[in-house]
Amino acid sequence: MSLLTVGSVAFDKIETPFGKTDKIIGGAATYISLAASYFTKKNNLVGIVGKDFPSEMIETLVKHGVNTDGLEVDPNGLTFFWSGKYHNDMNSRDTLDTQLNVLENYEPVIPETYQDCKYLMLGNMVPCIQHATLKKFHMRPKFVMLDTMNLWMDIAMDDLKAVIREIDCLTINDSEARQLSGEYSLRKAAKVIMQTGPTTLIIKKGEHGALLFQDDKIFFCPALPLEDVFDPTGAGDTFAGGFIGHLAKTDDTSFENMKRAVIYGSAMASFTVEKFGTERILNLTETEIDNRVMEFVQLASFDLS
Amino acid sequence: MSLLTVGSVAFDKIETPFGKTDKIIGGAATYISLAASYFTKKNNLVGIVGKDFPSEMIETLVKHGVNTDGLEVDPNGLTFFWSGKYHNDMNSRDTLDTQLNVLENYEPVIPETYQDCKYLMLGNMVPCIQHATLKKFHMRPKFVMLDTMNLWMDIAMDDLKAVIREIDCLTINDSEARQLSGEYSLRKAAKVIMQTGPTTLIIKKGEHGALLFQDDKIFFCPALPLEDVFDPTGAGDTFAGGFIGHLAKTDDTSFENMKRAVIYGSAMASFTVEKFGTERILNLTETEIDNRVMEFVQLASFDLS
Repeated sequence: MSLLTVGSVAFDKIETPFGKTDKIIGGAATYISLAASYFTKKNNLVGIVGKDFPSEMIETLVKHGVNTDGLEVDPNGLTFFWSGKYHNDMNSRDTLDTQLNVLENYEPVIPETYQDCKYLMLGNMVPCIQHATLKKFHMRPKFVMLDTMNLWMDIAMDDLKAVIREIDCLTINDSEARQLSGEYSLRKAAKVIMQTGPTTLIIKKGEHGALLFQDDKIFFCPALPLEDVFDPTGAGDTFAGGFIGHLAKTDDTSFENMKRAVIYGSAMASFTVEKFGTERILNLTETEIDNRVMEFVQLASFDLS
Repeated sequence: MSLLTVGSVAFDKIETPFGKTDKIIGGAATYISLAASYFTKKNNLVGIVGKDFPSEMIETLVKHGVNTDGLEVDPNGLTFFWSGKYHNDMNSRDTLDTQLNVLENYEPVIPETYQDCKYLMLGNMVPCIQHATLKKFHMRPKFVMLDTMNLWMDIAMDDLKAVIREIDCLTINDSEARQLSGEYSLRKAAKVIMQTGPTTLIIKKGEHGALLFQDDKIFFCPALPLEDVFDPTGAGDTFAGGFIGHLAKTDDTSFENMKRAVIYGSAMASFTVEKFGTERILNLTETEIDNRVMEFVQLASFDLS
C-alpha cells in the first residue's frame, strides 16, 4: 500500500563527541522516506526546500523510489536549518541554531495523485499544520501516524491535542509521554494518552529501546547495544520510517504485525546512529538489514522450557 | 544444588514519594535469600545481626527454607542500619544515614556444613571481605557471583578488581559498568570487564531492564512497565536472588539457562518494588510467579514470520 510522508527536509549541522559536520542533509521526512524506501516502493513525500538545496539529494531520494512530486522548491527562500551539539552521554543535546526559512509560512499541499495514500506519516511539525494537512484528504487515510516533540507541548498543547484526537498512532519519547499525560509511570501515561485519540502509542526510549502500546497489550523492543553511537540525529525518524514502511508494505495493522514493524524500525534506527546524518541509511543492502534484524531476534529471544 | 548467600542483613528506613517507613528489615542477603527461596530449598545464609534484630524475622527466613546457622547474632552490637530518600524519578536516591554497627569489624565465618555449597552469592560488601570469604572455602564453589557498588570503585578499586578476578559472574548497574571499565558504550564496557575475570556479566538498568553478557553473546531482558514503582530498595538484590536461585535449582550455567534465570530474577524484582521493603516477596505463590513470568514472555515475544 502507498505511504505518504509529510515533514521537514532540512540542512543540519551536528557536533558530537566524535566530530562535527558542515551543513549536511537532514529533516524528519528525509529520514522517514529513506528508511521506508527499504520496505515499500509506493513512497511519497510532501515537504519544502529552498533554492540552496542540492538537486543531487532530490535525485538520491528518487533513486530510492521516493516520489518527490510533492516536494516544493521555493526559488526565493532557503532550506530549514538546524544546528545542535550532543553531550557526552549522547542522550541530551543543545540546539545551537534554528532557522525556519521556507518552513516559516509553509502549508503542505497534497498532490492529487497522492490522495489515495493509505498510510500517512505526519513528521514532527507545528501541530496546527499537521492538523490542516490531515484535513486536506478527500478521504481519511487508513492509518495516520504522528510524531511530535516537547516544544509543541510547551507552546501549542491545545493544537497538539486537537490533532492527536484524529490519529491512529502517536510516537513520542519517554519524557514527552510524561509531559503529555502528567503521569510518571509509562504504563499509566500510555493509558491516559490512548484515551485522547490514538489506539496505538509508541514510546521511544533511545538507547533503552521502545514500548508499543495498544489496548491492554504491551510489547517491548530493546535497542541494540552498539559499540559506538556516532550521531543520534534522525534515529527517531528512521525508526518511524521503518515502522510505517513495514506496515504499508504488508498492509496489516494487527498488533502482531506492529511488533514486527517495531523491530524493523529499531533495526533501521540502529544503522542511522552509526554514522553522521543519513550516510549509513543511503546504501543498505537487504542482507545487511536481515542480519541486523536477526541480531534483535538473538538479543531478545529466550525459551522458558 | 545448594546455594550460599553471604551479605548484609539490616534495618532500613525508607522514604519515597509514596510514603515513608519506620525501621524495617532490609539488607542484601535478606532480599537475595528470600527471592532464592522460591527456587531452591538448599538455601544457606551467612551474615551478622545485632541484639536488636527481631527473632521473628529469623523465623520467617527459616520458614522460607533458609538455613540461618551461618547468621551470627552479636549480643553486644546493633544491626547495620541504612536510611535513604528516593527522588521523584525513583531512579536516584540520597543516603540519609548509614550506621555500620556489627558490620564494622565483621568477617564472615563459613560453617563447615556449608562448605559443599556449589553456588555462592557474594552480596554487596567491602571487597576485601568478599575476597577473604571466597578464600575460606576448602574447594572453590562451582559458580561464584558477586554484587558490588560505585562506593567501592571510589575507595577500594584495587581490592575490588582483585576479587572480581576470581569470580564467574559480576552484577552491577550501568553507571557502575561505565565507571569500572572507563567505557561509555555498555557493549565495550562488558568486553573490558569480562577480560578481567568474570565470564558472565549482568548489567542492571533498573526500569530499563537488564543485559546479560557472556563471550560474544548478549541477551536483553526488559523490566516490566509497572503502574507504580512504590519502593525500589532491594530490587537489584531480589533480581540476583531469583537469578542464582534458578541456576542453583537447575544446576545449569549454560547461556540459554542464564537467559531464563534473568527472566526469573526480573520477575522477582518486579514484585519487590510494588511494596515497601521485603513485604511483597514474603508471601508469593507459585501461580503469582508463573503469571508474572508470562507477562515477561508476552512483553518480549515476537514472531517475524
